[in-house]
Parts: sequence; C-alpha cells; structure tokens
Amino acid sequence: MRVSQFFISTLKEAPSEAELPSHRLMLRAGYIRKLSSGLYTWMPLGLRVLRKVEAVVREEMNKSGGIELLMPAVQPAELWQETGRWDVFGPQMLKIKDRHDNLFCFGPTHEEVITDIARREVKSYRQLPLNFYQIQTKFRDEVRPRFGVMRAREFVMKDAYSFHSSFESLEQTYRVMYETYTRIFTRLGLQFRAVAADTGAIGGSGSHEFHVLADSGEDALAFCPNSDYAANVELAEAVAPATARAPASQELQKVITPGQKTIEEVAAFFDTSARNVLKTIAVMTHENEFVLLLLRGDHQLNEIKASKVLGEFRFATEEEIKSNMGCRPGYIGPVNRSNTILADRAAAALSNFVCGANDDGYHFSGANFGRDVKLYDSNVHDLRNVVAGDASPDGKGALELCRGIEVGHIFQLRTKYSEALQATYLDENGKAQVMEMGCYGIGVSRIVAAAIEQNFDERGIALPSGMAPFQVAIAPIGIKKSEAVRNAAEQLYAELTAAGVEVLLDDRDERPGVMFADLELIGVPHRIVIGDRGLKEGKVEYQGRKDETAQSIPLQDAVKLVQSKL
Amino acid sequence: MRVSQFFISTLKEAPSEAELPSHRLMLRAGYIRKLSSGLYTWMPLGLRVLRKVEAVVREEMNKSGGIELLMPAVQPAELWQETGRWDVFGPQMLKIKDRHDNLFCFGPTHEEVITDIARREVKSYRQLPLNFYQIQTKFRDEVRPRFGVMRAREFVMKDAYSFHSSFESLEQTYRVMYETYTRIFTRLGLQFRAVAADTGAIGGSGSHEFHVLADSGEDALAFCPNSDYAANVELAEAVAPATARAPASQELQKVITPGQKTIEEVAAFFDTSARNVLKTIAVMTHENEFVLLLLRGDHQLNEIKASKVLGEFRFATEEEIKSNMGCRPGYIGPVNRSNTILADRAAAALSNFVCGANDDGYHFSGANFGRDVKLYDSNVHDLRNVVAGDASPDGKGALELCRGIEVGHIFQLRTKYSEALQATYLDENGKAQVMEMGCYGIGVSRIVAAAIEQNFDERGIALPSGMAPFQVAIAPIGIKKSEAVRNAAEQLYAELTAAGVEVLLDDRDERPGVMFADLELIGVPHRIVIGDRGLKEGKVEYQGRKDETAQSIPLQDAVKLVQSKL
Repeated sequence: MRVSQFFISTLKEAPSEAELPSHRLMLRAGYIRKLSSGLYTWMPLGLRVLRKVEAVVREEMNKSGGIELLMPAVQPAELWQETGRWDVFGPQMLKIKDRHDNLFCFGPTHEEVITDIARREVKSYRQLPLNFYQIQTKFRDEVRPRFGVMRAREFVMKDAYSFHSSFESLEQTYRVMYETYTRIFTRLGLQFRAVAADTGAIGGSGSHEFHVLADSGEDALAFCPNSDYAANVELAEAVAPATARAPASQELQKVITPGQKTIEEVAAFFDTSARNVLKTIAVMTHENEFVLLLLRGDHQLNEIKASKVLGEFRFATEEEIKSNMGCRPGYIGPVNRSNTILADRAAAALSNFVCGANDDGYHFSGANFGRDVKLYDSNVHDLRNVVAGDASPDGKGALELCRGIEVGHIFQLRTKYSEALQATYLDENGKAQVMEMGCYGIGVSRIVAAAIEQNFDERGIALPSGMAPFQVAIAPIGIKKSEAVRNAAEQLYAELTAAGVEVLLDDRDERPGVMFADLELIGVPHRIVIGDRGLKEGKVEYQGRKDETAQSIPLQDAVKLVQSKL
Repeated sequence: MRVSQFFISTLKEAPSEAELPSHRLMLRAGYIRKLSSGLYTWMPLGLRVLRKVEAVVREEMNKSGGIELLMPAVQPAELWQETGRWDVFGPQMLKIKDRHDNLFCFGPTHEEVITDIARREVKSYRQLPLNFYQIQTKFRDEVRPRFGVMRAREFVMKDAYSFHSSFESLEQTYRVMYETYTRIFTRLGLQFRAVAADTGAIGGSGSHEFHVLADSGEDALAFCPNSDYAANVELAEAVAPATARAPASQELQKVITPGQKTIEEVAAFFDTSARNVLKTIAVMTHENEFVLLLLRGDHQLNEIKASKVLGEFRFATEEEIKSNMGCRPGYIGPVNRSNTILADRAAAALSNFVCGANDDGYHFSGANFGRDVKLYDSNVHDLRNVVAGDASPDGKGALELCRGIEVGHIFQLRTKYSEALQATYLDENGKAQVMEMGCYGIGVSRIVAAAIEQNFDERGIALPSGMAPFQVAIAPIGIKKSEAVRNAAEQLYAELTAAGVEVLLDDRDERPGVMFADLELIGVPHRIVIGDRGLKEGKVEYQGRKDETAQSIPLQDAVKLVQSKL
C-alpha cells in the first residue's frame, strides 16, 4: 500500500479525556475516531488490525469444529421474555420500538436467538454436539463508556454457543474451547492468563475468563508463577496457614489506648505489625443476628466469601455496635463475648494478638483463642482477599498479584436457556431431553486495545507483527527529488509485495522526522530507510520497531532480511 | 468440510409466506432462517455464500482505490439534525433512545457520519480525492418487509463515499465506480444492467442503478439489446416517432357509441387498433387550470414526465370533467376545445384517429390535428412510459422491456451533505471550499437472493461456482458398510482439499436419494458419486449441477476433471 493511496491521519496530542495508553495511542495513530460516547469508527489503519484479530479467531474456531453463522443484531423482545431476561438484563440492553410499536433490542448477547434456532433445527441426539459461532457487532449501553474501544457501547464480539446431549459432551467442548482460546491469544502474541471466574449475569456454572495482562487492567488477578493456577482476586482461595497456631505465651493485658482506633494506629502503638492485630468487623445477618467477623489486621474482608457463609448480610451501624458491645467501633473485640464469631483462617492461626477490649480507649494485648476467645473449628472460614505471598491453592508456590483486561470468557451454561426455551432433542430412546449448553465469548475489538496496552512505548504503538497494520514500511528520503531513491523504493516495494509481505510505501515526500514519527506511532514493526547517500554504496537502513538503532544493509538483501524477521 | 462436522438443515416445503423462488429456496436449503419480520439469521451454508460476495466486492473496491473503514451502526441524532434528515427520512429510520434519553438511530445509511469524518480529517486539497467504504450491517424499518433477505429490515451493505476538490474529480471516481460495479457483477457471474436512475431520497444529481435481471424483479426496465442503453421504465425517454404525421384523409364524423367507454371497447367498436384511438386525460394543475393530456390509446401516462411539464397536478374529478366538458369522462376529447392541450409525441403523430366527442354516448372518427384540434409544437412532450418496440433514445435499435432487482446504486451527491455539514478543505490558494461528494452502494445480502432468482431450477439452487457454498461434493454410497467406498471417498476428499478445492464430503451414510436431493437443493455445482459397483472398475460418477445425466470417469481422473471445471 502506498501512503498516498491510503489514509493516515496522526495527531500530536490525544484528547484529554483519553486516560489509557491504548486509548490515547489509538486516537493519535488514527486507528479510531470517536463518533459519540462509546461509539467509534474504525479508521482504515485500525480496521486492518481488527481484521487480523478476527482472522485468527475465525481460523482457530474453524479448526476446533466451530460452525460460523450470522444472527441479526436486532432481536425481538418475545424471546427475551421467554427466558425472563427482558426485565432483568437492566439498562445495558438498548431497547427499541419499531414503526409498528413492537419491542426489540440491539442484541447485547445472543443466547436467546441461538437457543431458538437450536430448538427449531435440532431434532435428534445424532445432530449433537454442535458449536455455532459468529463474529458480530453487539451493543451494550454502558453507564459510563470509557477507555475508547476497551469499554465501548458498540463493539465486535466473537460469540459461540454449543449444544450437547450430555454434560460430558459439554465438558469436552468446554475443554476444546479453553485450548482454542489459549491458541488464539498465543498466536496473537499476547501475554495472558486463564482464570477461574464467577459466572456473573450470564448464569450457569463453570467458567473461565481470559485476561490479557496489563498494568492498566480493570481486574485484579492472583496467579501462581509456577503453575497454571490463576483467579480473580475476589475468587481466589486464601488457604489456611501451613503452620498451626502457636500456644499462648503472653498474659491477656488491658491497655489504655486513647485515640488509637485504626489497625495502623494500634499496631504502631503496640510497636508490632498489623498482622498481629486482630480486625473485628460487626455485621447484621438477614435474620438480624449480630455477628463478629475476625480477620488479621493486614487482611481485607471479601464480602462474596463472607456471604457464602452468612447469607445476605450488612455492616452493623454505630448504634447497633454500641448497643451490642457497649463501646465505639474502634474498640470492639471478641474476648469473652457470647456473640457468634466467624474467623478467617489466617486470623484463627494468630496467638498473643492485640484486639479491642470492648471499652472505649482500651485494647487487649496477649489475647489468645481458646483461653480468651472461644472459637469452634466450624466457625473458621476463608473470609478474605488473597494477598501477594499467600500460598497458591494448588500448593505449587506463593501467589503473585497482577492486573488483567478480560478479553475472553467461557461458560458452562448447562440448561439455563435450553430449559427456559424448551430446547429439546430426542435421545436414543426417542425421549425428549433438554440440551446442555456452553457459551464462549471473545471481545474482538477489545483485544486490539488490550494488545496495545501490552505493546507500546513512548514513540507509539508496537504491536507484534501478526497484528500490526503493515509488516514493513519503506521510508524513502527525497522520493520526488532523487530518481535513484524513487527507483530503489519502487523496486523494493514491488519485490516485497510480490513476496506476499504487507508493505507500506511512504511516498508522501515528507521530511524523515515526520515519516519516522508517523511510522513509529502507527506501529509498523520493520522499517527500511532509503537515501541517496547510502544508495551510492548500494546500502539502505533497516530498523526494527523496538531496536535502538538502525543497521546499514545491502539493498539487495532487504527482502530476505525482512522475510527472516517475519 | 464433512457434512457430519457442518450443519445442513434442509426442508421439504418452504413456509407459505415465501413468495419468491429465492426466498423459498433459501429457506428450504437452510441458507437462512427467519427470526422475526424482516430479520434473518444467515445459517452456515448461506453465510458461506454471503462471504463470497463480500470478498469479491472488497477485492474490487480495493483494486479501485477504495479505502475500507468501519463506522458504528448506531448514530447520534445531532448529525442527522444538522443535515435536516432526522425529520424527513421518515419511519424507515429506526430511532433509538439510550439510557440517558439521548436520541440515536440504527443507521439506514452513513452520509452524515462519513461527512463528519471528512470535515474533521481532511484539511487540504492534497488529501483529495478520497473514497472510503465499509461492508456493514444496516437497518431500514420497511413497512412491509418481504421476499426474505431481498427486502429485509437488517441487511449487509457495501457503502462507499468519495470526496473531491472538483466536479471533474467526482466524475472520474464515479466512472471508476461504474466500472468497478460492472467488474463485480461480472465476476459474480450475474446477468445485470446499469440503468440511468432517478436519485430518489438520497438526493443530488447523476446516478445509475445496477439491476440483476430476473422475472421476479420489482423494477421494470427498458434496454436496447444492441447498446448499453438501459433505464428504469419510468425514466426511459419515449422519443418522437421517426415518421411525420400523415395528412388528414378522412372526414370528421360523429358516431353514436352507447356504452363504449374504455379504449378497448371503442377500438373494438370502430374495428381498429387501440393505437388509432386518442386517449384524453383531464387533470387540474396546481394553479387550478383544467388541462387535457393526449396519449395514444395503447400508451400509459407517465406522471413523473407529465409533472416535469405541468408542475404538480392531480387528476380531475368526474364533477370537474362534467362542468368543463359537459359530458362524462369516457366521452371527452380535444376536438374544437379551447382548453390547454398537451400531447404526447406519439399521440401528436396520429391522423384520422378516433376520440371522444364531448357528448355522452358519442365519439368522433376521422379526427385530425390541425383541422379539428389545434396543437402547438410547444405543447408536444414526452408524457408516456416506453413500451417494447419503441426506438431506443440512443438510436441503436428498438427497446426491450425486462424486470430487474436493484443491487447497486451510484450517485453524484455533489455538495448536498458537505454543504449542510460544512465539510470544507483548503484549496491551492488557502481558501476554504466545500467538497464534492459521491456515494456508491451495493446490497451485499440482497445479491445472494438476486443471484438465486437468476440461478435455480426445480431441484433447487444452482449458483455459479464462484458464489456456491461449496465447489464440489463427494457422495459416497454406503460409506459405513463399504471400506472400499470409505477409503476412496476419504482419499478423494484429501486430494481435493490439498488442491485448494472447497469440497463437501457427505459422510452422513444417507440413502443416495436423500444425499442427491440435498446436494442439488443447496446448490453444489459439481458432484462425484462413489459406489462399490463402479469402484470395482476404478470408476466414479461425475455430474454437473446443470447436467441431465452423470458420466462415468476413472477415480484417478476426478481431481483433474473437477479442477478443469472450476
């Protein structure tokens, strides 16, 4: 492609609203342009990248037995009413009335439509399993669209839906999809992790998220560097400490601690670490029971985990704490209390700890479970978020924390939708059975942004060659003035094109600085500079996008060199 | 592809609502499935065909300098309000309110969005011309969606928009697009015609429609078989008869014609042809003038043409006719009247004709212009629809009529949108100038239906090989019983696949009748049948989709034969 016949439109500065590097760089490089809040045009350069991601996703889905189809974006309300999601999906769903006042939505997802197709088309167990997929435009009316195409309202998604005559068959396809996603993100050259995930609004059971790792990621992840273990921080299990609780060796002592209320203040006051201070959190259960939750001072309560033990609960008010404990919140503790007590595993392993004395301005030191606080084993649970250094649940090392951008999500839906829509098949005995279902999504347009979060520098975008808009650029210096430069550039362009290389010829006759800045900003991984001086000795300059300096090479070796780099 | 790993779902009968052959066959062959009125899922087979059309369109657009991008489907109302189309586009536009009650539409077309991009991105005449295109999903809320994907509400369109610094540049790109469309439809193997078109709602001036010819087409076309001339019947010029009016040779005679009111009745009564009877139509102009329009009895009034002469007009009521002419509508005529008279060119060439006598129950015979009816040359116009046999306006023969399906439309928009949106560039002198614009649409999904209208028989779809879902099918008889058949089928499948042929292996172990019916219905252009009996002599059977009978060929020649047919 010649720049003169293409459209490159770079910006010196990105609009100030762009916070993330990928958002800023996609605007500056002219990959995207904003039409309206959460609505972006994929400009020619960006579209080339998007299509490359699409192609990899499509190839790998096809290899894994996925069957591509294309469902409408606009979906009738009736189907969503059948599954009950018309009312519960919430305002993310863009509802539409047509000219006859019939209700539709701009599909945020396609479980209803594909299950409707399956219930009409699948008659026999012999037709199963099936794994349909599409690469299609979705719309989700985000409250606050942001980060460019990372959280846009209109976006491109690959969504696959599988149908099965048994759970075993679903599990098998689920594994195949797990492997397919792994291949896709590996081929795209991305650093990523599959993590066990909460199933969220889509429903069902059994699910993994695929995250591209990036400091700017919205999700906090815990992973074991020595194994495949990875999970959302909120879901990662905090295992019990490996060593048992040490025996009590200190006396229980009531100490006056005026004004020392936070864990940090108390730890400093007692000249100890926060991990030796017991954090006591008072909550009210749905049945109005006042309960004390105990955590180590350096740990955070995980409300999802707590609610798995307690059911629905809320934090006690200051009034409730005063009336139950006889003191202000900063001074509560479990010593000699008859309230229900739930302790986190790490808290339960403490001995000789500091805690509130249930008396305003006082704490205990040297407190111990057993002697001072009654704690049944059945009241010890995983109640906290994991922290870096915690033991990995698979026993293979210590957990590390990182941030990730969710780009894929696979679910075992089981029969949530097939039951609601009565999607049945006839089994070997001619009996109608409800199909098992899985679903498998990839945020195709989000991948482009996520990949840039992982691949950029101060000069611009630096995508891996498989995703870059062009593989190599030719930058001729003085193309209009020098016939030698022009001829060499045109010949190299013709040769690289003939060799099947995606080459961009910068024939704008711009100053070298302008050309280089543009080519680096838009992220062309390889660059050949052709100038009069070098040509006199038959030389041109090659520089990789991530190289510090250029190297002089014979013009005649340029094609081979580029090919060897791809 | 193996049928067992693909999804084929054929129907014996199409739903009765499907009127057109393409609609019936696309449903029966499992190309599409209906989700809701005017909303169709492209099933795996149909999607393969759709993608082939897309690929040809994309390749030819790229060859012609088109630059692909992708705009959002959802568009903010503000832009449409700037051009004034928010209110005038009508109920075809699907309006949407987002969660913040902001107004949007599901884009029926993208002039506003692309012109907004151009006004932001194009600064200098040096950046022009530009021709942006996208292949994208559009929505038009048809009053009565019908004919399947032929007139669906959601559909895939290729829309291109060009920007220019001069009208000459627009004309040049317009010509390039005309040629590009010609190449696209030729490559797809379609019989088509480009016709001069009215510009309709899109606006601007200078426009051609591209029609696929088919008996079921909604549009009536006139074309000259000896030249490129073609036009919508409503727009085709009816030229003046080549021979001058013959002199009067009969006396004007008033004849009693009780109950003879229609042209046919009157012609039969006078034992003459309808072409010798003058048809008189009374209309009222916007200024309330009573005017008589004269046509030959065998011709039809073209209201568009008449309004070009008269301005806005309406047909006179029976009351108005009685009060102006003193008789009922069936008996009016121009003899000895002082009303304004406009005559069609063919009517003006009549002599010795029959017409109403302005007396209930009476007609004149032997009437003549000049002697009996005053007619000025300036009142003779083209007022009628052309009919088969009329002289072609380009003088190259006689017109023929046919029906067509509009699949493409190119427009010279000029400055309609660029002016409204102030899309300007700086010219050589640094002065801001409004851009000239063109736009170029292709109904990608409609092409699939239109192509089937042209390529089917009683057994099913018979698309040309470039559009067919697969190029060749292998139909092994008794694949599970016979190892020889299985091995031969698998080997041929491997060889054809390795040769880059898109081959479908019917490994369902169905009866030959079922296999053949399915393969013919879905439209695989070439078929190899493998059976035990033939294999004993090393033979298989080849049959083209349009062949009457199969031919026995050596198995070892099958790959070569298929390749020679593609």
